[in-house]
Amino acid sequence: MATNDGGLLQAFDLGSIFAPARAIEDYMDQFLDTRPLPENLRAAIRYSLFGGGKRLRPILVVRACEAVGGPAEDAYPAASAVEMIHCFSLVHDDLPAMDDDDLRRGRPTLHKQTNEVMAILAGDAMMALAFELITSRIGDPQLSSHIARELSIAANDMISGQVYDTLPQSSAEEDPLERLGMIHRHKTAALIRAACRMGAICGGCSVSQLDALTRYAEFVGLMFQVVDDLLDVTATTEQLGKTAGKDAAQAKLTYPGLLGIEQSREEVDRLYREAIAALQPLGPRAQPLHDLSDYMAVRDR
Amino acid sequence: MATNDGGLLQAFDLGSIFAPARAIEDYMDQFLDTRPLPENLRAAIRYSLFGGGKRLRPILVVRACEAVGGPAEDAYPAASAVEMIHCFSLVHDDLPAMDDDDLRRGRPTLHKQTNEVMAILAGDAMMALAFELITSRIGDPQLSSHIARELSIAANDMISGQVYDTLPQSSAEEDPLERLGMIHRHKTAALIRAACRMGAICGGCSVSQLDALTRYAEFVGLMFQVVDDLLDVTATTEQLGKTAGKDAAQAKLTYPGLLGIEQSREEVDRLYREAIAALQPLGPRAQPLHDLSDYMAVRDR
Repeated sequence: MATNDGGLLQAFDLGSIFAPARAIEDYMDQFLDTRPLPENLRAAIRYSLFGGGKRLRPILVVRACEAVGGPAEDAYPAASAVEMIHCFSLVHDDLPAMDDDDLRRGRPTLHKQTNEVMAILAGDAMMALAFELITSRIGDPQLSSHIARELSIAANDMISGQVYDTLPQSSAEEDPLERLGMIHRHKTAALIRAACRMGAICGGCSVSQLDALTRYAEFVGLMFQVVDDLLDVTATTEQLGKTAGKDAAQAKLTYPGLLGIEQSREEVDRLYREAIAALQPLGPRAQPLHDLSDYMAVRDR
Repeated sequence: MATNDGGLLQAFDLGSIFAPARAIEDYMDQFLDTRPLPENLRAAIRYSLFGGGKRLRPILVVRACEAVGGPAEDAYPAASAVEMIHCFSLVHDDLPAMDDDDLRRGRPTLHKQTNEVMAILAGDAMMALAFELITSRIGDPQLSSHIARELSIAANDMISGQVYDTLPQSSAEEDPLERLGMIHRHKTAALIRAACRMGAICGGCSVSQLDALTRYAEFVGLMFQVVDDLLDVTATTEQLGKTAGKDAAQAKLTYPGLLGIEQSREEVDRLYREAIAALQPLGPRAQPLHDLSDYMAVRDR
């Protein structure tokens, strides 16, 4: 089982799975270079977008595209757009009115580095640029429209998840575990789900391939957030590159908080096995996605 | 001349020009009803979206569609989306970190009515919902992709305009009138331009029709903002439904501030005449757009 076997990290080459990250960064870089923007806004967007992110979501787009037989390059516009949506959400989540975080990926958050006005506007711009990139860089209108729809639905679900998380309406009558699942499905899993689906669609997938990758994404998406909850408890601020222990400090609903650390780890294992099973029909081309779920399950090492 | 003839307001039936507003509101209402959302987020979006706006931009979409011979209904998705983008920008512009406004359309701004977190997230959601609406409600993928592209470019230009306006980079070497024109072209005119273009595209326009409506929109878009600057000087808070005199209080670059009131009114007249001239090739079907520019020019009465 992934989380109980540190050796798994040696069983695959993380560097080669994440290798397309560089090409996606170049793609975003070139898009940002050619788009007329105020120079201070461009600099703020670059600060957020090229701040050392792992590029997990864009890598999922590319690897899902390849898993259905598509070429990696066909996935670059969607991969870039999903990363822009992710970065927009981080910048707005960090704002003083929201999580009020000073640190992100080991550096000052954007509103600390610039100011609050710029962080609000750069976040807004990254969302709008994601849709501009998709609709101007994907030549096939059917594909561009489909990808923009997938991404917009996921962006909305993600924003809804943030509302569920920070502005609960009436938590009394709800089962906390059910509520937590709903928060995580929206806040984290929706964008990971969209990443895999967009990749599959860019690769010209069949309906059954899309179903398989959607199932995979839903399991790893939820697993990713349980691991994130665990990391907040078990890792240090230095290891995370962002403030550790914030969930407990803010009395947030988390898996370790509800189930304890051990049972949360068992939940990670269960979700991991389901994700791997979902990949089965896709055959050996899905190996990088298999390896990615190993990586996502053991981030707490 | 429009601004010197109060009688013009009687020369056309404002009610009938704005009549499609109701149908567009119903369209937005129905879309919001069917889209699963946290109830408090839905309420916040409704508060902003159904807060008594004039619906100028959606009306421009519909009237531009009709001006090229398209049926009004074909323009409803684009009309609804442009209004969502407009409302998103108002909600974020009003935030404490931005203009810090308490009043909008005679009511508390959204962050005053709810809280800052909700205003940030509801603004984000309205932008994402605009793209979801376009890509899920426009059946023809070629059209949906084209409309989403027009809207995303305009949204980005609008955000850039807000950056130029609130976070100037180096104003020393620039001609202030040139800089003001650039702010207004981005901040206000871009979305008005997109509204007219999207309407024309939804109506199946020819290239020359699109060119004519783009020219019209650029002139009325700029005129709209000069009138807005004038209103801030000449109207009361009660008349505006938002705080008057804010431009001067914030030492903002405005047309009356640079040119004086009289010369700003002459600029309104010039832009008005150019806009009307641009409509010439479209014939009598463009009469509502002609009437709309009369309305936009005399808002300061």
